[in-house]
Amino acid sequence: MFKKVTLAGVGLLGGSLGLNLKTRGLAREVVGYVRRAGSIEECSRVGVVTRATLSMEEAFTDAELVVFCVPVSQIPILARAALPFLKEGTIVTDVGSTKRELVTELETIFLPAGIHFVGSHPMAGSEKTGPGNAYLDIFRNTICLLTPTERTSPAALHQVQELWEKVGCRTVCLSPADHDELVCRASHLPHLIATALVNHVLGNNNSDVQARICASGFRDTTRVASGSPDMWRDIVLTNREQVLSEIDAYIETLKSMKETLKTESPENIHSLFSNARKLRNQWLDSR
Amino acid sequence: MFKKVTLAGVGLLGGSLGLNLKTRGLAREVVGYVRRAGSIEECSRVGVVTRATLSMEEAFTDAELVVFCVPVSQIPILARAALPFLKEGTIVTDVGSTKRELVTELETIFLPAGIHFVGSHPMAGSEKTGPGNAYLDIFRNTICLLTPTERTSPAALHQVQELWEKVGCRTVCLSPADHDELVCRASHLPHLIATALVNHVLGNNNSDVQARICASGFRDTTRVASGSPDMWRDIVLTNREQVLSEIDAYIETLKSMKETLKTESPENIHSLFSNARKLRNQWLDSR
Repeated sequence: MFKKVTLAGVGLLGGSLGLNLKTRGLAREVVGYVRRAGSIEECSRVGVVTRATLSMEEAFTDAELVVFCVPVSQIPILARAALPFLKEGTIVTDVGSTKRELVTELETIFLPAGIHFVGSHPMAGSEKTGPGNAYLDIFRNTICLLTPTERTSPAALHQVQELWEKVGCRTVCLSPADHDELVCRASHLPHLIATALVNHVLGNNNSDVQARICASGFRDTTRVASGSPDMWRDIVLTNREQVLSEIDAYIETLKSMKETLKTESPENIHSLFSNARKLRNQWLDSR
Repeated sequence: MFKKVTLAGVGLLGGSLGLNLKTRGLAREVVGYVRRAGSIEECSRVGVVTRATLSMEEAFTDAELVVFCVPVSQIPILARAALPFLKEGTIVTDVGSTKRELVTELETIFLPAGIHFVGSHPMAGSEKTGPGNAYLDIFRNTICLLTPTERTSPAALHQVQELWEKVGCRTVCLSPADHDELVCRASHLPHLIATALVNHVLGNNNSDVQARICASGFRDTTRVASGSPDMWRDIVLTNREQVLSEIDAYIETLKSMKETLKTESPENIHSLFSNARKLRNQWLDSR
């Protein structure tokens, strides 16, 4: 149990983590650092932290654990600003969706000050944003990726791992580079595909009837495209090469599918669909 | 109220329609024509029809309304086989997902015999299949597309329209050609994108970790790829030109997105995502 945990940013993930820390008795005090006065009221209304504050000094002083829960581009800025208030031995982690650039930058900020940093990426969330949408079960049965490096303290890694497991995650360790490659395929690519599909079908001067006849399949295929544009801009900016090359690879997959649909027998077209169904259903069963 | 309605095929959609006809008192008798003895037991167990039979004669004789609820390629075959048992004045409709080829073919079969045909396509369903997954609310707040032509009887169209509205659909009339174009973009394209994504991420000799870190975003973006391969093979085979050209158009959308991500400012990348979010949320609100 931590005495004081500070959540730097209290949105959907930060709020849900705060709710877990409070409800499960994992921290005596959960302090939310927020940047707008309105957020203090919202945090207090939804009860996801012990208290929220606009003061860096109040938020970060004496924290035993700090979790950065803001979009990736904001984390290093906030980290540099928080540094003077943090004491040696504090454990710092984050919930950022990309890791290669971020981990290097945060290690450079924190390690020389004797502060431990462990990169985390809970693969949880929703297209809904803000602490008002926070909920206790958000981490249940999800994967939290941890991205230790050779500079990571094993003891700090262990504590961060335990934290995520206590709120319901299974943890998997990956190098920051492997993280960005695998997550690009599993998460960034689906998001980009969904965003392109929305713009393709609902934009492009298509008719009103086009939108009216979109049904539940379209709704689910595009759900993630309602997610936070701030978060997704940052993901692209911090994993750009991987994202661009993954789009290219996916276009090749589409072209190869198109060839199958154009030239192959009904049996082979059936196999394309039954193979995907089988792969997906096996994946569902294995979760 | 119809005296006898025959469902030719009792899967997810046929079963759900049968359940609606029975529960809402829209037919005195709902007979399911099925092709396997096991289906008779299943239909009786789940109670979606008054009775199911393997006999065409029993199923189709004296039917006032016949609804074909099998994959598109099976409909004309079944229609030709059922024809000798149908009486003049019977109304025939279907739930096929493509309409251009099908409507022409069914008009050729039925109209010379004095049987009315009206094409229907309820935009309802799920990736789950079979009468065991049938449920009453499947049509609620969905769109049912009707595809009358100049050969369609206005009275028959009116009755079919009323049927779908009574089970919960809003109806929209489109020409068969417009239907196939608009539905390709709203439904066939999302399905193909999801299928390609599954094969791209879960196939391709990717590592076990790749599958393990796929989360709820991937699950929802690919949900439709668990749908019936029979149905999707038939959709592709009966709307092939449209499907191929829509894949090309979508690849162009992806390429243009890639250019934005590669060369544009953070603000413009943000706009790409916020524009999609806005379009999708407006669409959700309009439903």
